[in-house]
Amino acid sequence: MTKQIHTPVERSPAENAQLALLLEVAGTPKPGNVDRHRDLSDLRFEQFLAGAVGSLAGFRLAASGGTIGEALRTGVQGMSNQSGGNTQFGCLLLLVPLITAATRDSLTPDGVKTIVSETTVSDSIDFYRSFEYVDVAVDDPPTDADALDVRRGAAAAETLRSRALTLYDIMELSANPDGNRTADGNAEEWTTGFSRSFRAAEQIATDSGPILDRAARAFLSLLAEKPDTLVAIKHGRDVASNVCDRAGAVGQDLGAAEALAAEFVEEGINPGTTADITAAALFIALERGVEV
Amino acid sequence: MTKQIHTPVERSPAENAQLALLLEVAGTPKPGNVDRHRDLSDLRFEQFLAGAVGSLAGFRLAASGGTIGEALRTGVQGMSNQSGGNTQFGCLLLLVPLITAATRDSLTPDGVKTIVSETTVSDSIDFYRSFEYVDVAVDDPPTDADALDVRRGAAAAETLRSRALTLYDIMELSANPDGNRTADGNAEEWTTGFSRSFRAAEQIATDSGPILDRAARAFLSLLAEKPDTLVAIKHGRDVASNVCDRAGAVGQDLGAAEALAAEFVEEGINPGTTADITAAALFIALERGVEV
Repeated sequence: MTKQIHTPVERSPAENAQLALLLEVAGTPKPGNVDRHRDLSDLRFEQFLAGAVGSLAGFRLAASGGTIGEALRTGVQGMSNQSGGNTQFGCLLLLVPLITAATRDSLTPDGVKTIVSETTVSDSIDFYRSFEYVDVAVDDPPTDADALDVRRGAAAAETLRSRALTLYDIMELSANPDGNRTADGNAEEWTTGFSRSFRAAEQIATDSGPILDRAARAFLSLLAEKPDTLVAIKHGRDVASNVCDRAGAVGQDLGAAEALAAEFVEEGINPGTTADITAAALFIALERGVEV
Repeated sequence: MTKQIHTPVERSPAENAQLALLLEVAGTPKPGNVDRHRDLSDLRFEQFLAGAVGSLAGFRLAASGGTIGEALRTGVQGMSNQSGGNTQFGCLLLLVPLITAATRDSLTPDGVKTIVSETTVSDSIDFYRSFEYVDVAVDDPPTDADALDVRRGAAAAETLRSRALTLYDIMELSANPDGNRTADGNAEEWTTGFSRSFRAAEQIATDSGPILDRAARAFLSLLAEKPDTLVAIKHGRDVASNVCDRAGAVGQDLGAAEALAAEFVEEGINPGTTADITAAALFIALERGVEV
């Protein structure tokens, strides 16, 4: 017998990013989100599977030296090839710079901070163009900044150029919005060296049991820690804050989280940004050698 | 507003094959198998997700002109990069020639028949080498043919060369075994122009509802139609025949199939070949334009 004499090839960063998307959506229970055991009325599990298949083209581009903007736009274009609409836009926004960092052997908070700080105006233009493929939930822009509403898509290019706004600049604006707008949780990852993603990755790596359970527990920690941007945009800050409290009460108890999942689905509470950071954390954990 | 002005890119055959693997394992209930709602004691859902991620390298090789054998071996090597062991070997054996056919614009029973009939001795050597990455359940070889036991891996190369056995020849031997051995259901697909795969694809395409339900119903039809090879190898032909009858009694009723799924998991009945053909059917259906 000569079985199993070969060591399997290691997964590349692009493959780990694709696997992170799949593990994120499969992790259960993730209260309020599509998961292995739940669909939403307008979004089904299989659309996330197709989204993960299509996203890989963007991940491969990031791994082979493509710019952050090109990789993001290519990934979103591939992701959108299913009938559910936006499945993983936010995940891609986090995963693409992390892949670039992993490819350059600098998958650390400082490493990825350098990478996002090197983005250009051309990256912002590609970022805006990405919104032409899918309908993404974002907060309204400040009244004096209609020209920078991401929903303008490619039409924003002239403003981006004339104001020399890099993608990092755009994220900084979204992380620190003026007036009463909601700070974007993904943008905050960009401007803080992906601090929550790295912390959640550490939790996944030191946790035990099947990785889908670890993913669910990391999601619960993140949800309790900080109000979810998507929940805040759709339901207001009080609801987002209440969601944190209820996740905090559940703690790491996946049984109790099942009940919370039923409640959130009923209430239309969909913590999308928390899921995005969970995917980013899974990617980092896979790159660090956590096994499936 | 300039949203959704772009048509998404079409999925390539390699991407559709990867998606077929993901939809196959997610389809539920698939009595006796890992599915969206069930793990087995030694095999978990997430290992199939990782298997699908790793298999793509082989699919891409098939799509870019690699030989059937190289693509299969590369796919199996990538698939095996998870801790569950063999997740999708049989699926890959069916998907690789179908991808080649799709790439040559000849995804028909005759088209794929031509492709498998053109395989060479080199393809059989690669096929045997594929068994070195994972532990695959196969029937014992006839007593006079130990030299062709696939579990010999690369050690069988000399025999393959001296007897000039192509991969098609190997499949023909497995589809029409002598003595009391079990005919291999996947090998029969190779020698019959993938007749059951194409028929099940037609069922999926004309069925209605979410694709994961369609996948589950196609699996039930296939299971009722013909004894599953893996069940026959592990439990004998009478059990495999009884499994057909019980699947036939369930018909297309997914509710009744839930109960059957609980029974089969309890009894250790794992219809693997039926799952392989379901994956092949999903690939053909996706190539024919069935939407996710």
